[in-house]
Amino acid sequence: MKSLYEKFTWPEIKAADKDRVVILPVGAMEDHGPHLPLDTDNLIVSRLAEAVVASIPAESLLLPTIPFGFNEHHKDFPGVIFIQPETLMNFVVDVARSLAHHGFRRILILNGHGSNHPVLDLAARKTVIATGCLCVSASYWNLMSETLQAERHSRTGGMAHAGELETSMYLYLDPRHVQLDKAREAIVHDENNRYLCLDLAGGAKAMAMQWWSAQTDDGTMGDPTVADADRGKIFFDAAVRETVGLVKEIRQIQLKRRKDHH
Amino acid sequence: MKSLYEKFTWPEIKAADKDRVVILPVGAMEDHGPHLPLDTDNLIVSRLAEAVVASIPAESLLLPTIPFGFNEHHKDFPGVIFIQPETLMNFVVDVARSLAHHGFRRILILNGHGSNHPVLDLAARKTVIATGCLCVSASYWNLMSETLQAERHSRTGGMAHAGELETSMYLYLDPRHVQLDKAREAIVHDENNRYLCLDLAGGAKAMAMQWWSAQTDDGTMGDPTVADADRGKIFFDAAVRETVGLVKEIRQIQLKRRKDHH
Amino acid sequence: MKSLYEKFTWPEIKAADKDRVVILPVGAMEDHGPHLPLDTDNLIVSRLAEAVVASIPAESLLLPTIPFGFNEHHKDFPGVIFIQPETLMNFVVDVARSLAHHGFRRILILNGHGSNHPVLDLAARKTVIATGCLCVSASYWNLMSETLQAERHSRTGGMAHAGELETSMYLYLDPRHVQLDKAREAIVHDENNRYLCLDLAGGAKAMAMQWWSAQTDDGTMGDPTVADADRGKIFFDAAVRETVGLVKEIRQIQLKRRKDHH
Amino acid sequence: MKSLYEKFTWPEIKAADKDRVVILPVGAMEDHGPHLPLDTDNLIVSRLAEAVVASIPAESLLLPTIPFGFNEHHKDFPGVIFIQPETLMNFVVDVARSLAHHGFRRILILNGHGSNHPVLDLAARKTVIATGCLCVSASYWNLMSETLQAERHSRTGGMAHAGELETSMYLYLDPRHVQLDKAREAIVHDENNRYLCLDLAGGAKAMAMQWWSAQTDDGTMGDPTVADADRGKIFFDAAVRETVGLVKEIRQIQLKRRKDHH
Amino acid sequence: MKSLYEKFTWPEIKAADKDRVVILPVGAMEDHGPHLPLDTDNLIVSRLAEAVVASIPAESLLLPTIPFGFNEHHKDFPGVIFIQPETLMNFVVDVARSLAHHGFRRILILNGHGSNHPVLDLAARKTVIATGCLCVSASYWNLMSETLQAERHSRTGGMAHAGELETSMYLYLDPRHVQLDKAREAIVHDENNRYLCLDLAGGAKAMAMQWWSAQTDDGTMGDPTVADADRGKIFFDAAVRETVGLVKEIRQIQLKRRKDHH
Amino acid sequence: MKSLYEKFTWPEIKAADKDRVVILPVGAMEDHGPHLPLDTDNLIVSRLAEAVVASIPAESLLLPTIPFGFNEHHKDFPGVIFIQPETLMNFVVDVARSLAHHGFRRILILNGHGSNHPVLDLAARKTVIATGCLCVSASYWNLMSETLQAERHSRTGGMAHAGELETSMYLYLDPRHVQLDKAREAIVHDENNRYLCLDLAGGAKAMAMQWWSAQTDDGTMGDPTVADADRGKIFFDAAVRETVGLVKEIRQIQLKRRKDHH
Repeated sequence: MKSLYEKFTWPEIKAADKDRVVILPVGAMEDHGPHLPLDTDNLIVSRLAEAVVASIPAESLLLPTIPFGFNEHHKDFPGVIFIQPETLMNFVVDVARSLAHHGFRRILILNGHGSNHPVLDLAARKTVIATGCLCVSASYWNLMSETLQAERHSRTGGMAHAGELETSMYLYLDPRHVQLDKAREAIVHDENNRYLCLDLAGGAKAMAMQWWSAQTDDGTMGDPTVADADRGKIFFDAAVRETVGLVKEIRQIQLKRRKDHH
Repeated sequence: MKSLYEKFTWPEIKAADKDRVVILPVGAMEDHGPHLPLDTDNLIVSRLAEAVVASIPAESLLLPTIPFGFNEHHKDFPGVIFIQPETLMNFVVDVARSLAHHGFRRILILNGHGSNHPVLDLAARKTVIATGCLCVSASYWNLMSETLQAERHSRTGGMAHAGELETSMYLYLDPRHVQLDKAREAIVHDENNRYLCLDLAGGAKAMAMQWWSAQTDDGTMGDPTVADADRGKIFFDAAVRETVGLVKEIRQIQLKRRKDHH
Repeated sequence: MKSLYEKFTWPEIKAADKDRVVILPVGAMEDHGPHLPLDTDNLIVSRLAEAVVASIPAESLLLPTIPFGFNEHHKDFPGVIFIQPETLMNFVVDVARSLAHHGFRRILILNGHGSNHPVLDLAARKTVIATGCLCVSASYWNLMSETLQAERHSRTGGMAHAGELETSMYLYLDPRHVQLDKAREAIVHDENNRYLCLDLAGGAKAMAMQWWSAQTDDGTMGDPTVADADRGKIFFDAAVRETVGLVKEIRQIQLKRRKDHH
Repeated sequence: MKSLYEKFTWPEIKAADKDRVVILPVGAMEDHGPHLPLDTDNLIVSRLAEAVVASIPAESLLLPTIPFGFNEHHKDFPGVIFIQPETLMNFVVDVARSLAHHGFRRILILNGHGSNHPVLDLAARKTVIATGCLCVSASYWNLMSETLQAERHSRTGGMAHAGELETSMYLYLDPRHVQLDKAREAIVHDENNRYLCLDLAGGAKAMAMQWWSAQTDDGTMGDPTVADADRGKIFFDAAVRETVGLVKEIRQIQLKRRKDHH
Repeated sequence: MKSLYEKFTWPEIKAADKDRVVILPVGAMEDHGPHLPLDTDNLIVSRLAEAVVASIPAESLLLPTIPFGFNEHHKDFPGVIFIQPETLMNFVVDVARSLAHHGFRRILILNGHGSNHPVLDLAARKTVIATGCLCVSASYWNLMSETLQAERHSRTGGMAHAGELETSMYLYLDPRHVQLDKAREAIVHDENNRYLCLDLAGGAKAMAMQWWSAQTDDGTMGDPTVADADRGKIFFDAAVRETVGLVKEIRQIQLKRRKDHH
Repeated sequence: MKSLYEKFTWPEIKAADKDRVVILPVGAMEDHGPHLPLDTDNLIVSRLAEAVVASIPAESLLLPTIPFGFNEHHKDFPGVIFIQPETLMNFVVDVARSLAHHGFRRILILNGHGSNHPVLDLAARKTVIATGCLCVSASYWNLMSETLQAERHSRTGGMAHAGELETSMYLYLDPRHVQLDKAREAIVHDENNRYLCLDLAGGAKAMAMQWWSAQTDDGTMGDPTVADADRGKIFFDAAVRETVGLVKEIRQIQLKRRKDHH
C-alpha cells in the first residue's frame, strides 16, 4: 500500500482515506559538534517517519521533510541554515492548510529539532483555528522519555544536542558519516538548577535558550563519547514505537463540531 | 524598596540595578465557565507576580500585566478577546527588547494562560537572538507540578481550565466574584490517552488543541466542584515560592559572550 | 451595575446590552521628566475611564488599559517601553474586532498618549471596515480643549508633555509619586510658528515630531512648575465630563447599513 | 531653477541643496458624487504642490503624486481604488527614507484625501525614527481653516467631501470635467453633535468614520450647489499661500542631534 | 470616447464596458546615467500607455502611472527612490483587486522598469488567485524584441539601461531634457556569456542582478552614444503597436470558470 | 570529494572553498495529470541537481530540495500543497542569506516548477541586496531551450505541464511511477496568440496565468502521449549539461565592490 504522499497522482489523493494521519517531518541544518554532519536532525526525523508509515501504511501518509528549521541562535557556527520563525511557521501552516483543503482531517507535525518546538506547536494551533481539522505537533524525544531515562548511560545534560541520543542514533542509521574520534564530552548542565534544563529526556520547568556559542565551545551539548550503535537502535525503535502509538491515538480521537454560544 | 517598574522616573530607571529580574506577566480575557469571570488568568498571574516582587524586591522589578492573550479557539464563547499570535508575540518582544535597550539583562515572561505558552516561548527566544540578554519564559503551573499532584483532589483532567486549580485560587484571591453554585464537573480527559492530555499538572507528550466549543459545553474543562479557598491558598503560595525560586535561579546564571567560529 | 468587562462571566457578556459603549483605554510607559513616574499616561487614562463608567454604568463597559504605546522616538530616555506602531495597531484592532464578534456595536478607543493618536485613529478605521461596527477614537485632551485654554496658567507650549496638565492631574490623582522639587520649566515652543505646535490644548496645523532627546534635555516639554492639585481636579473633572458627553453622543448615533452601488 | 525632482539627473541631485524641502503629494482615486471625477483629490493636491514649488523653487523640490490612497470604506461606490493602509504607509515611508538616504533633511508629505491623514502622520513619524531627518505631514485643508471659515457659503457639514470646497476648486482648475447639473446638496452633519464632525474646516474632537455608503446616497457629503470657480480660486490661492508658509517654517527649524541618556 | 479612468465619475465607471482592458503603468525613479533624467522609465511607459489608449479608446482604460519601483540595488546613486518589493507588489495588487471588485475582468500591468518585472509578474498571479479575473503583466521591451533586434545600431549589451533604446526614445519624446553631450558608451556585457545577459532585447537564460554600482561607473549600461530621435520614434511606435496587439489579444481570451475536482 | 552540503560537519564547512557554487533546488507538490505523481517537479529538479554536482563536485555544493512551491492556482486539484509566495520567498531568502553569512559568495537557486519563477527571481535579487553575494536564479527549461526545440515531437503547447518534457523525463528517471495508459493529449495553446504562451520551450512575451482548472480538465497541459524514456534521457542530459555550463559561468564572474556615489 502506497504511503508516500508524493508518489500519488491527484486522482489517487482524491480517492484516499481522509482519516489516514498525514505526517509532516520538520528538521534542521545545523552544527552538531565536530563529529556529526549538519543533517543530524533531518536524518533522524526522516528515517523515523519512514519507519512509522512502513509499519502502519494504511493508517498514515508521509510528506517530504522540511529540511531547514529555526536556529538563528546557532549561527555563530559555520553551516547553519536559519529560517526566521514566522517564515517557518507560515510555511508549515501552508502545508497543513493545503492538506485540510483536500479533506484530510488528522495531521501530525513531527519535529526533529529542539527550537522548532514552539514554532510547530503554534503552527498546529493556527491550522486548527483556520481549518477545524485535528492538527497535532510532537517532538519525538518527548514521546519516548521513559526509554531515554531507562537506557541512557550519561547523566542529566548528556543528551541535549549532538550528545548520547543523537550520536547513538546516527551511528545506527548511517555510521559512515560519524567521526566519533572527534567527539568529546561537553555537559554544561548545572546540577543545582531546579527549573532550567536542556536535556532531551525532560526536566525543564521553564525555558531559557541563550546564544549557542555562549554555552558550548564546539557545538556539542551532552556526552557523545558514551554513544554506540546498539543503543542507537534501542532509541530509534522506541521512537518508532511511540510515534506509531501517537498516530493510533490521533486516529481514535472523535472529531466533534464547534458550537457557537452567541 | 520600589519594585513596580511603572512608578520609577526615568532617572531612577537609569540608576537601577540592571541585574534585577524584570517580570512581564501575560494573561488573557476569556470564558472560564459560568462560575468564574473573564479575568481569571489575569487575576492569578498579576497577584502572583505582585507577591513575588513583594517578597524579593531588591532582586526583581514588575511590569504591568498584558491583559489579552492568544485564544482564538475560544471565540465561540461570548466575551473572549483574542489577539493574533504573531501580534501578541511582537508585542511581547517589543517590551522585552525595550528592557534590553535600557540595559536590563535578565527578563522573565510569566505566563498565566495555556495557549500563550508557545507564543511566549518564541518571544523569549526572539528576544535573546535580537539582544543577547537572558530572556526566560515560564507558565506558572509548570513550576509547581509537584504541589499540584500532591494537593489535588480531582483526578487527571480535573485542572485543565476553570477547574480545581483556577477556581480554588480565585476563591482565595477574590471570592466575591466566584459563582460557585453555577460550577459543574466537566472532565473530558480520556484515560486511555498515553500522549495527549490538557491537565495543567502535566502528562502531555504531544500537543493537540481543538476548538474549545467542540470539547466543552460551558467553557469548563476540569472539576471546579472540588475547589475551595484553603486549597487555593496552598496552590497560590506554592506558585509564589516556585516563581521566587525561578527568579533566583535566573539571577545566578553566569552570562557569557557569544563567540564567532567563522 | 457591573461595568468592568473583565468581571463578567461569559453568560453575563452574552446577556449584556450590546449598545453599551465599550471603552478601551490605551496609555504608554515613558519618561515624564524627573518629576513624574513612567506610568503618567496610564494612570490618567485609566482613572479617567474608571470615572466615566462609574458615572454612566448602564451605558458603558470598561476594558483593562493597554499599558504600552508607540513612542520609539523617546527611547533615548531610560525606561521607555516602545511598541512598534503596526504591532500596537494590530493589537488594538484585535481587541476591537473581538468585541464586534460578540455583538458589541459601539466602541471607544480612549487615548492617553500623544503619539498613539494616529495609530488608534487607524485602528478605529480598520475596525469599522472589518466589522461594520461603530468604532471611535479620541485623545482625551482634544475633548476638553476649552477647559484647557480657560484654566491654564502656562502659555502655549506649557502643556505638551509632563507639563502643567499632566503634572496637575498626577498631583490630584496620586501626589505621593510626584517629585515636584525636581520639576523645571521647559517650554520649547517657538512663538513664531504658525503651523507647528505640540501643546495639548491645540493649535497645530501640521504634524512634526522629531526625536524627543533632540528637543528636550530632561524629557519635559512644558511647564510643570505651575502645576497644582486643585487645577488637576478641574482638568480631570472636565476630562470625565467631556468623555461622558462623547460616550452619550456615540450612543445616539443611528447605525445605518451599507449599500452596494455596483 | 528646476524644481521637479524627476527631471534631475543623478549628478544634479547629488549637487542639489539638501535643505530644500522635498514635497510628496498623496491623493486618492474615489467617488466624488455624480458631479466630480474620481481624480478630484489628485488634481487638487497636484496642482497645489506645483504652484507651491513654482513660487519658491529654490526652497523646494516636487515629487510625483501618489495617485491612490486609503479609502476601503468607499468601496461600495464603483471606481474606488483602495490601498490597504499598511501598504500605503510602507510605500510612503520607502519614498521618504530614500530621500533621507540621499541626504535630504526636510520632507513634507502633503495630503489631499481625508482618510490618508493618520496613515501619513504615522509615515512621517516612522521616517523620523528610521532616519533622523525632519519629516512633516499635513492635510492642506487644515493649513487654511481660517480662509475656509471666512469664505464659505455653506454651513457646517457643507464641505466634507465633494462639497463646496472641492467642487469650487475643481471648477477653478478644470471646469470642463465638472458636471455641476448633477450636483445636489447632501449635508449629513448633525448640528447637535459636540464631538463628531467631518467638515474639512475643522470642529471634530473625536474621530468616527463609518462606511461611506451608510452615510450618503450618491457619494457626496456637503453642499456642491453653492460652489463656484471664483471661490475656488480664493480657496486654491489660500492653500498655496499657507503651504508656502509651512514650507518656509520647515526650512527655519533648527535641526538638533539626539542625545542618549543611558 | 473617454479612456482616462481618473476622469470618470463613479456612475460613469458603473456604466462602463467591463471588458475594456484596464492598463496600469508602473515605472521607477532612478539614475539613468549623466544624460537622462530620473524619470526615464516613467516618461516612456506613461507616454506609451497614453498612445495605446488613444489608438483604441473603446477597448481600453488608463490608470495613472505608479511612479516609483523596485530598485534598491541602485541606491548608491543619488536620487533613486526605492520601494521594497513586497510593498510595491501589495500596492499593485490592491489596485488590481479594486478593479476586479468593480467588475473589470481584464487588466494589463504594463512595466517600464527592469527590476519591477518579477514583482509585477507575481502581482498579476496574486490578483488572479484572489479575484479570478484575467490579469496580465508585461514589460514593454519584451513585446517588441523583433524591432529591437532589427533596428538597433549597438551590439548586445548596448541597450540595457540608459543605453540606445531609452536614450533614443527620450530624445524623441522630450529632447529638451536629454544632455547627450554627457553620454558615454558603457557596454559591460561579456560576450562569452551563454546564460547571463542584461540586454533588453533578450538573450538571458538565467537571472543575475548585482549591485548597480559594482557594474557601472556612471549608472549607464549600454551605448547611448548611438541614440537618435528618429530611431526613438521607430522604437516608440513599435512599442505602441505591440502593446495594442497585446491588449487586443487579452480582449479575445475566452474567460472560463474554475472547476473544483474534490 | 563531498558535494552534499548536509553531510559536512561545521568545521568542514568552515574549511570549504567559498567560491564553490551552492545550489538550492526548489520544486513543488502538485497535480501532473492522471499519469504522473505529485512529485514530478521535485524528482526532476533533485535528480538534475545531483547529477550536476556529481559531475563538477569541486565547483559546487548541493542543498536539499525545498519540496513545496507556489501554486495556489492549482488548488482545485486534490493533493496540491500550496505555499504563499511571500512565505516561499522569505524561506528561500533565509536559506541564501544563511549561506552568505557563512561566507559563500556564489549561489544558484535552481527552479523546477513554473510559477516559482518570479518568486525565486525576487528571492535572488533580495539576497543580493541584503548580502552583496552573487545569487542567480534559473528555471532549468530556460537553460535548454535549443534542445527542447530541436528534440521535441509535440507542437507548441505540447510541453507546458505534465506534457512531453516532464513525462519523458519521469519515464527515464522513475518509470515505475508513470501510468502512461492514463495520459491523454491536452494542448490548449491558441496558435493565433502572438504574446501569450505557456510552452516551456519559450515564446511568451507577456505573462498570463489563469486558474489551472479553468484551462485544463485533468491537470495536463501539453501532450504526454508522445513521451518516451529515450527522449527523456536526451532532455535530462541536456539539462545537466546546460546547468553545469551555468555553474561554470557563475564561477567565472568577477565580483566587484559597490561604490557609494553620494
